[in-house]
Amino acid sequence: MNIPQSDYPRIVIVGGGFAGIALAKKLKNKPVQVVLLDKHNYHTFQPLLYQVATGGLEAGSIAYPIRKVVHEYKNFYFRLCHVNEINTKSNKIIADIGELRYDYLVIATGSKTNYFGNKEIERNSIAMKTIPQSLNIRSLILENFEQALLTDDEFERNALINFVLVGGGPTGVELAGALAEMKNAILQKDYPDLDISKMQINLIQSGDRILNTMSEKSSAAAEKYLKNLGVNVLKNIRVTSYDGRTISTNTGVVLETATLIWTAGVQGAIVNGLPASSLMEKVERIKVNEYNQVLGFPNIFAIGDIAMMTTEEFPQGHPMVAQPAIQQGKLLGENIIRFIQKQEMKPFHYNDKGSMATIGRNKAVVDLPNYHFHGVFAWFVWMFVHLFSLIGFKNKAVVFLNWLYNYIRFDREGRLIVRPYKKKSFTSFTFDEI
Amino acid sequence: MNIPQSDYPRIVIVGGGFAGIALAKKLKNKPVQVVLLDKHNYHTFQPLLYQVATGGLEAGSIAYPIRKVVHEYKNFYFRLCHVNEINTKSNKIIADIGELRYDYLVIATGSKTNYFGNKEIERNSIAMKTIPQSLNIRSLILENFEQALLTDDEFERNALINFVLVGGGPTGVELAGALAEMKNAILQKDYPDLDISKMQINLIQSGDRILNTMSEKSSAAAEKYLKNLGVNVLKNIRVTSYDGRTISTNTGVVLETATLIWTAGVQGAIVNGLPASSLMEKVERIKVNEYNQVLGFPNIFAIGDIAMMTTEEFPQGHPMVAQPAIQQGKLLGENIIRFIQKQEMKPFHYNDKGSMATIGRNKAVVDLPNYHFHGVFAWFVWMFVHLFSLIGFKNKAVVFLNWLYNYIRFDREGRLIVRPYKKKSFTSFTFDEI
Repeated sequence: MNIPQSDYPRIVIVGGGFAGIALAKKLKNKPVQVVLLDKHNYHTFQPLLYQVATGGLEAGSIAYPIRKVVHEYKNFYFRLCHVNEINTKSNKIIADIGELRYDYLVIATGSKTNYFGNKEIERNSIAMKTIPQSLNIRSLILENFEQALLTDDEFERNALINFVLVGGGPTGVELAGALAEMKNAILQKDYPDLDISKMQINLIQSGDRILNTMSEKSSAAAEKYLKNLGVNVLKNIRVTSYDGRTISTNTGVVLETATLIWTAGVQGAIVNGLPASSLMEKVERIKVNEYNQVLGFPNIFAIGDIAMMTTEEFPQGHPMVAQPAIQQGKLLGENIIRFIQKQEMKPFHYNDKGSMATIGRNKAVVDLPNYHFHGVFAWFVWMFVHLFSLIGFKNKAVVFLNWLYNYIRFDREGRLIVRPYKKKSFTSFTFDEI
Repeated sequence: MNIPQSDYPRIVIVGGGFAGIALAKKLKNKPVQVVLLDKHNYHTFQPLLYQVATGGLEAGSIAYPIRKVVHEYKNFYFRLCHVNEINTKSNKIIADIGELRYDYLVIATGSKTNYFGNKEIERNSIAMKTIPQSLNIRSLILENFEQALLTDDEFERNALINFVLVGGGPTGVELAGALAEMKNAILQKDYPDLDISKMQINLIQSGDRILNTMSEKSSAAAEKYLKNLGVNVLKNIRVTSYDGRTISTNTGVVLETATLIWTAGVQGAIVNGLPASSLMEKVERIKVNEYNQVLGFPNIFAIGDIAMMTTEEFPQGHPMVAQPAIQQGKLLGENIIRFIQKQEMKPFHYNDKGSMATIGRNKAVVDLPNYHFHGVFAWFVWMFVHLFSLIGFKNKAVVFLNWLYNYIRFDREGRLIVRPYKKKSFTSFTFDEI
């Protein structure tokens, strides 16, 4: 990998998400050599991916070049690569661009979509965890509409403009709301020769309420907002199969659709090489102690979504969202220096600042630790928090201007099919000659 | 294609570039049915493609959804498709989504890259005529730098960061200038572990001056600007071959490079079905009369780059740039209605408003019909003209803000490798273990 030798100990960080970047910032100009690895050359602000998918924001506005974050840091190296394996015996990571020895390793690889072993759904659905996936969803929505124009078969046309989202967490809820606004404000105008009232947005939730990590009050408010926007919220239903055309469920409900967007679960994005005893089954997260040290490996740490730190308050580990990742990254930045200097480390305590979700224009739900509210003010709070969490002045300014423009004009201009999404052909058209 | 029958005559426009959009706007709510076809669902503002390629602007800022241009027009249909053939006997076009009868056909398919028959160069080089191509160049520049970090072989590393642009027209000149600014302001900071002074930008021109459609004064000024920015301008040289690694030329000059960007020529993007007698050989443009009517076909018109209208002043046809396309589109909008109503059409006269090119920060050259100037003021004129030529308020605002930010901060934030460019592997690395 062409990383020079250094007199300082080498810390290798795998992953430039919320946790990895928070850690990297803390290690700026400290007496260590840091090597940051990621498969993308940018940091993704995942909470706004759904706005890229629905054309409200450009990809560049919610991503930030990692090299720009770290370019002034001394003794700091970034490499764009896929890490395939960890060799804990020789203290090396093995990547597609070569091997690298570490003194300390930090695994911050985040999470990936969990299909719960259903390969058919994995093959036929589309997820929304990365920028390329969001752009694929954007293209797919528009391509479906272009296709729907071409068919005389009503059944087929309706399936093309039926969007089914599986998973009633924040991602599914926010995407459903944005799709509904896209339907009402944009698609209606852009496709005057289609009957847009036939466009369906179905949100399927396995449990008895959406946003089930939030308060019941917020769940109820969010569901009401979605219904008012025209989204069908289907609860207590599990999707059992999807062949690219027909969704079957455990209750007998059947949906015909060309598009299933799967947001129903996440699991840790583990790297090969750790023993099974260090991993939590099913969720694929790495067991760590209160210092984010991987059990059995004092010089290996895991932070963020991938880390499973069980406490009395969080027997299932911390929620797989940005805040615990950022807080763990920051603390580890201090702890790893302490550890190297043989000082005592500080245990991690999660400071839960609350959670929130937006459903659309003037509509959001916010749960603070002791207070729940929703409506216009909640929506302003949501915008304010997300705007100020973005990295970089220009991204903040561009996102703010886009939101202002979209709000005033009821518009979303990001509707270019720049990277057509290659999907197995849903249908073969009969070409009418007129 | 599911276009309804209409009592009005049907005009089919193939292509939503400058000419096609100018025509479409003129036909708004006229007593005709209009069907606009394009292979993209957006209009591209080609003069700024080089800024997308070098990370100064996002793709969405220089493209505009075609459906948004026409969504309020009555009796107007857009279809996303590739047109494969024209059948002039049955008055039909044959596309990948079906066939369509026309009463009047307007070919506005523009131009494509001309490799002058050299298949090897076509295979190994990259062009910059479309947004996807610009994004590919952007990814390629960054991917080359990431690769260059990984090799110990100096020869290989230098080839990876040697950028060769063939063609000294506005596209080559503007891209060379932007690359030089990227080198000085960005790449130097982003790749502190590379010796950026080894990065080369070579601009190869076959003739004895660059910008040879502009005044000699402007050519000289542009060349001086480029040299001051560190670009090697090589004149009177023709590239004869490029195998993906080594460029050979007619003068014996040999260049080793992983990247050849070809901007040395354009030709008409003709559609099959017109007889050879209607076409101008080599340049592949369609011969038209002074009303843009295709010779031999009274109900077929061609406008913009694809149209070859020879006049005393323009014996080789009009320049293949935006202005003649826009002017022809506008005039044809009036003429085609006159033609349908059996009135006399007006002949086309090109109003040459001048030409300009920018080389970088504070550096541009402008040729007005009777006056040539360059420098800071020329650069402001260039920015003003390009800003106000963009379609849509938001694109104007976003581009303006980006330029302001880039100017103040010497920055270009669009450096995400979102769509990795798959190139035949230039090299195989030896993986060093440290």
